Amino acid sequence: MKIACLAGDGIGPEIMAEAKKVLAALDLPDIETADADVGGAAYKAHGHPLPPETLALCKASDAILFGAVGDPSCDNLERHLRPEQAILGLRQALTLFANLRPATMFPGLEDMSALRPEVAREIDLLIVRELNGDVYFGEKAIRTLDDGRRQGFDFMSYAEDEVRRIAHVAFRAAQGRDKRLCSVDKANVLETSQLWRDVVIETSAEYPDVELSHMYVDNAAMQLVRNPGQFDVVVTGNLFGDILSDQASMCVGSIGLLASASLGEAQTDFGTFGLYEPIHGSAPDIAGTGKANPMAMILSLAMLLRHSLGLEAQAQQVEAAVAKALEAGVKGADLGGGAGTAEIGDAIVDLL
Amino acid sequence: MKIACLAGDGIGPEIMAEAKKVLAALDLPDIETADADVGGAAYKAHGHPLPPETLALCKASDAILFGAVGDPSCDNLERHLRPEQAILGLRQALTLFANLRPATMFPGLEDMSALRPEVAREIDLLIVRELNGDVYFGEKAIRTLDDGRRQGFDFMSYAEDEVRRIAHVAFRAAQGRDKRLCSVDKANVLETSQLWRDVVIETSAEYPDVELSHMYVDNAAMQLVRNPGQFDVVVTGNLFGDILSDQASMCVGSIGLLASASLGEAQTDFGTFGLYEPIHGSAPDIAGTGKANPMAMILSLAMLLRHSLGLEAQAQQVEAAVAKALEAGVKGADLGGGAGTAEIGDAIVDLL
Ligand SMILES: CC(C)[C@H](C(=O)O)[C@@H](O)C(=O)O
Ligand SMILES: CC(C)[C@H](C(=O)O)[C@@H](O)C(=O)O
Repeated sequence: MKIACLAGDGIGPEIMAEAKKVLAALDLPDIETADADVGGAAYKAHGHPLPPETLALCKASDAILFGAVGDPSCDNLERHLRPEQAILGLRQALTLFANLRPATMFPGLEDMSALRPEVAREIDLLIVRELNGDVYFGEKAIRTLDDGRRQGFDFMSYAEDEVRRIAHVAFRAAQGRDKRLCSVDKANVLETSQLWRDVVIETSAEYPDVELSHMYVDNAAMQLVRNPGQFDVVVTGNLFGDILSDQASMCVGSIGLLASASLGEAQTDFGTFGLYEPIHGSAPDIAGTGKANPMAMILSLAMLLRHSLGLEAQAQQVEAAVAKALEAGVKGADLGGGAGTAEIGDAIVDLL
Repeated sequence: MKIACLAGDGIGPEIMAEAKKVLAALDLPDIETADADVGGAAYKAHGHPLPPETLALCKASDAILFGAVGDPSCDNLERHLRPEQAILGLRQALTLFANLRPATMFPGLEDMSALRPEVAREIDLLIVRELNGDVYFGEKAIRTLDDGRRQGFDFMSYAEDEVRRIAHVAFRAAQGRDKRLCSVDKANVLETSQLWRDVVIETSAEYPDVELSHMYVDNAAMQLVRNPGQFDVVVTGNLFGDILSDQASMCVGSIGLLASASLGEAQTDFGTFGLYEPIHGSAPDIAGTGKANPMAMILSLAMLLRHSLGLEAQAQQVEAAVAKALEAGVKGADLGGGAGTAEIGDAIVDLL
């Protein structure tokens, strides 16, 4: 089993090192890791944020462990050379269409949230975001109209098969949880959303045990503030998912603890091919200081073990070790503690 | 001076009655009001949510006072006949391009917010949302592709003049406040956003006294949870504005108190032509029970007096009366109080 490790920019390499420590400590037979450049680091070394060698390595692997991309020194590059394009390129080239973003309150960390503790405490939701369609990859340009005005445009669309495959992922996820699925769209304005809603309803016939509801995106943004505890699984398109999943993460308060999976269609021998990354960014302001919290990165490794390698027991072992470290007061600066990157990684390894 | 009163559906007529009481109590000379049907009520009476007579009345008026539209019994109508289309139709037909949505914490109501009081207390922001462009009014359809698959699509775009006119509104609003403007877009993915950003930067040259910043929409959704107090004026497109303005309102906690203005290009003799409405909906569940809180409707009237009729003193008088009523404990069910619709209206009239 082969894991491609793409550390990326900023704090990426530091937190990746801790995830690798944890992987080594699990002492799994037949697991091989290989590193490749991505993001601003790749641009600087190879002239492109997603070099062909990196993509080739990913394709030859069973799963990808991804740190973070984003480098302020690349801000003025042309769009297609900016670090973020690497993640968009990987999603598209590897058909990573299903982004799973769990947002769950960690017991004892309610005070980290800007929400009142009694509201924050109830958060236990999973956002399933579509990653390959919508307005992200449609035709787009800035052009000059006949009358001389500049216009920016982007084509938004979903085809029925794109909606159906993400709906299946979401319904199945709901079956494994509280069996409630809320589909978020803007069907009162967008035809893309109307088709989305039609296809989600059609797909629901195969999941009579899951309770399906629909919510407009503006209302969903309100409900995530008012009472995020009402949600079990939320499924939505690429653009709304980008916004709502970040909002939901922040409701939890500790984005240094949240992991995500981007799953493809391809099945490996042990699970589903996928990319795993913390939801936080490359945090250039603290890069190199040894202060980054590697927990989200380590929890991303746990998701990788579960979804791509079929190692559920080991995934739980890692998650339990992180929870125990938190209980024992091992907290990074983001949680108001004083533990450094390596210290946190070591503590988790000890607890394994 | 002529005000078109469009009460609409659900609690619309009940709260409109209280706003009219307040207007009458101000005893302004030369103000005339005229009623017209809109929304589900208009569909039932005339077969269309925005009948030609209603539009004609609006065009012949200096300002529009709007209640709320939305009627569950219309849910299965074809899209163009649904109540919400009335508001989209008015925005487009009357070129109401600038939506101003202030979100400010009312002193003493911090406990109504799901945010921690120390976070909620700091909220004092204005969202300026563009209303005539973006993916709302572009070409859209559900079609069958050559390969037989159904596809929903919507064309997203902004032309430079559309961005420029809303940018001017936002910069001027910032000049009248804390002189900080944050433009929200998704320029790392959307060309529509890239043009938006370019034009906002160009326009900023005319406002050297305003500090301009830019934020991606996913980050903005996070920051509105983490620390909404950081914002002064936020300017954004139609779709992101729909989501973020509702999120910001809910951060305040008491959506029964929040008013909005949708301003056009046309200048009346006394100010800018505009439509004024509470940000809450038609609340069909409590319609007819006399429980709706008319404060947001009455505060919408105050915005109308200010922006369209140039009656700043009277606008402040109304706002002060609402604040006094709240201080005196006159609270609707939405604020945990027991005051009914008419009782609240009467209390405000008494305090004028
Ligand atoms: C970096 C950016 C292109 C990306 C997105 O919008 O998808 C990011 O915000 C995310 O959510 O992974
Ligand atoms: C009813 C709907 C079409 C409308 C919108 O999306 O603009 C509403 O949500 C609003 O914000 O006024």
